[in-house]
Parts: sequence; structure tokens; C-alpha cells
Amino acid sequence: MFEGLMILIVCGGDDPGGAQLRRFGAEAGLLIAADRGARYCLAAGLAPDVVVGDMDSLAPVELDELAGRGARLVRHRPDKDQTDSQLAVDLALEQSPASICLLGAAGDRLDHSLANIHLLLRAARRGVAARLITGAGDELFLVGGEFELTSCAGRTVSILPFAGRASGVTLEGFRYPLNEAVMEPWEPYGVSNVIESARAVIRVRAGWLLIMLLRPDLA
Amino acid sequence: MFEGLMILIVCGGDDPGGAQLRRFGAEAGLLIAADRGARYCLAAGLAPDVVVGDMDSLAPVELDELAGRGARLVRHRPDKDQTDSQLAVDLALEQSPASICLLGAAGDRLDHSLANIHLLLRAARRGVAARLITGAGDELFLVGGEFELTSCAGRTVSILPFAGRASGVTLEGFRYPLNEAVMEPWEPYGVSNVIESARAVIRVRAGWLLIMLLRPDLA
Repeated sequence: MFEGLMILIVCGGDDPGGAQLRRFGAEAGLLIAADRGARYCLAAGLAPDVVVGDMDSLAPVELDELAGRGARLVRHRPDKDQTDSQLAVDLALEQSPASICLLGAAGDRLDHSLANIHLLLRAARRGVAARLITGAGDELFLVGGEFELTSCAGRTVSILPFAGRASGVTLEGFRYPLNEAVMEPWEPYGVSNVIESARAVIRVRAGWLLIMLLRPDLA
Repeated sequence: MFEGLMILIVCGGDDPGGAQLRRFGAEAGLLIAADRGARYCLAAGLAPDVVVGDMDSLAPVELDELAGRGARLVRHRPDKDQTDSQLAVDLALEQSPASICLLGAAGDRLDHSLANIHLLLRAARRGVAARLITGAGDELFLVGGEFELTSCAGRTVSILPFAGRASGVTLEGFRYPLNEAVMEPWEPYGVSNVIESARAVIRVRAGWLLIMLLRPDLA
């Protein structure tokens, strides 16, 4: 889908499950696990290249197994300012990847899910395309500028302004199109739009849009 | 907790369950159900004062029962710009309440959860204190200005800038205090703070903070 290095980051939220991990793991040039995410990798038969975090969610026997399978362990102190996911994203950005994919980054803890969405902006500001795939298969990513969606006709998509006002918002190929619209944070009217064309375009002149592309089977 | 009219809005996300509905229902001066939320109310033995939405999630027999129990039904067409939750919040704001509480507003659909968090800003800009309680009992609200938390010592709280940069951020009575800090949207370092004092203060000079107060039993 993308040219260049894709880095998969497996976070310690809800377990993405073996099928999802192996599917995205097969595309990834580098696999980074954030703390408990390493456990999900091992259970799926994947060996992370790097494990980062305070390691407070991993048992000594797991750390031994990870090291034995060649993982580099990057341990931070527990009272750090960053979440384990942020440490993983920063480590990934050091490799200048073309894209980053976050799994296990959404789930029960809504605060962690939201913080992980903020990490998409951390990557985007560095010019790195980043997306977060929920356990259900919903795909979240940010658009600042222009983005083309292909082969997504029929899929439901929600669009919200992220980190402030988004202006000059144009949606082409959607059931509810927009033309140079302003989306204010207190006016979340972009929920449950539908892609109608084989080629749909999202454009924003100022600000960021959070795109939530729902899993294909969800009308 | 608050003086004046408290309006409870029950949305159509995950079912908050009877115990939570009855607890908050008892405090509310007005109960508004957004579409499917009305079903949750009926199951909990509560009759909404108003049901608003496109009614596409409710069966005719449920609509009859709601009307029979005195609910005002405010039906909108399905291809509206607003979500059912937004219609409910706008209806609530017309009553000039002191506060609004949203239940059933978070759950499986992350896009709906996020849009509902944006609705907190819709209320806050009108000077109405609004909070969203997740099914797990986590409490989300926005602070623009100053807010005092009492009787919350020991509870975990996550703080993120909302809708852009937050500056002049001061946290007193927290394990990780801040003093006139700037929180950028790409730097989500406010996750998993802990309240340490019987009286904790959150202050922000410009921008908005999203406060996520985790349920009491969650360390």
C-alpha cells in the first residue's frame, strides 16, 4: 500500500488477536512492541525486533523469551512522562519510516485510545503516514492536505476536526459531500458519511481531519 | 453535586445498564433519550421525558410504549447532519440547564465516542457543565479555566489538550504536578496521573483540557 519502510507498533491495549497481528506483521519491515504488546506478539508467533516501555506488564520469563528470540529490550523508568506507546512511536520515527501502523492501541481504556490518536499527529507532523487499526478492524488516520481513498466504495467513514478547527474541507465521492467547509470542534457533523465512488478525495486547507474508516462489513 | 437543573441524556451507544441509569436518573430534573437510548431507559424502568432522533433504532411497539408513558417524541429525518446525540444535547441546551450528563455515549463505535466528547465542548461553550460517564464508570469532562476536584484522592486521571493547544496548565494536588505548562496535541503526556490531595486543582489559561477521571477501583 505504501512505498518504503512500514513499522508495525503493537501497543498494550486490547489484544488485536493473532490473525490481525500476523496480517500486518507480514507487511512490516520492523516490529516494535510497547510493553504488554510484546505478549500479544509472542502469542501470535511473532518476535518483536524491539520491545520498549517500563516492562511493568511483562513477566521475567516473557522478557527472557523475547531476548532469546532476538528482541532488543529498551527499558524506561515507570515514572516517565511518556506512555509506552509514545516511546514506541518515537523509536519508530528515528528510523524515518514511510509509514507506521498501530495495533492494540484502542480498547477498554478510552484515555489510552485518545492519547494514541494524538500520537498519529506526532507522526504526521514528521511527514510519516500513521494509522491506528482497532481490534474490530476500524482504521483511523489523520489528513492534513489531500488524501485519496480508493477501493472503499460502500464503506462508512466518520470525519472529525482534530486538534482544533479544520477549514477548506472538501469531500468528493461521498454521500454527503462538502465543499470548502469549516468544521468546528463543537460541531461534529461528519459522523457516518458513506464513500460512494471508487475514488474518493478528502481535502483540508488548514488544520487536521481525523478519518475513521469503519470496517468493511459495518454499514 | 451541581446547583440547578441537571439533564440526563441517554445515548444509543453501549447500554449503560440499569444501575447506572437509575442512579443518574434519580439526580436528573429532565431525562432525554437519543434514539436507541430510549430502549435502555425502558429496560431500566425509566420513562424519558423526551425522545429525539430519527427513531430508526426503535420498534413501533417501543415508540407506543414511550408515548404511553408520557414521552414527547421529536422525530428527525435520517439524513440529517447531526447525530442523535447532538440533537439531544441541543434540545437540552434550550432548557438552560446547570449541567448535562451523557450516558451510553461511549462504546464499541469509537467515532461516536469521539463525536460525543466533542459535544462536551458544545455545552461548555454555552457555559453548561457537561460530563460523559462511560459504562465502566470513567468520567470525562472539559476544563477551560479552573476546576476543583474534591474527594478524589487516589484516583487515576488522564489529561489531554482538547481541540488544540492548552497553555498555562497548572495541576495542584497531583502526583505529577504541572506549573504553567503548555500541552501540545502531539505530546499526550498527561496520561495516568494520580490525584494525591483531598482538594486538587486543574487550571488552564488558554484552550481546553479533556479530563478523564477513571473509575475509583482502577489504579
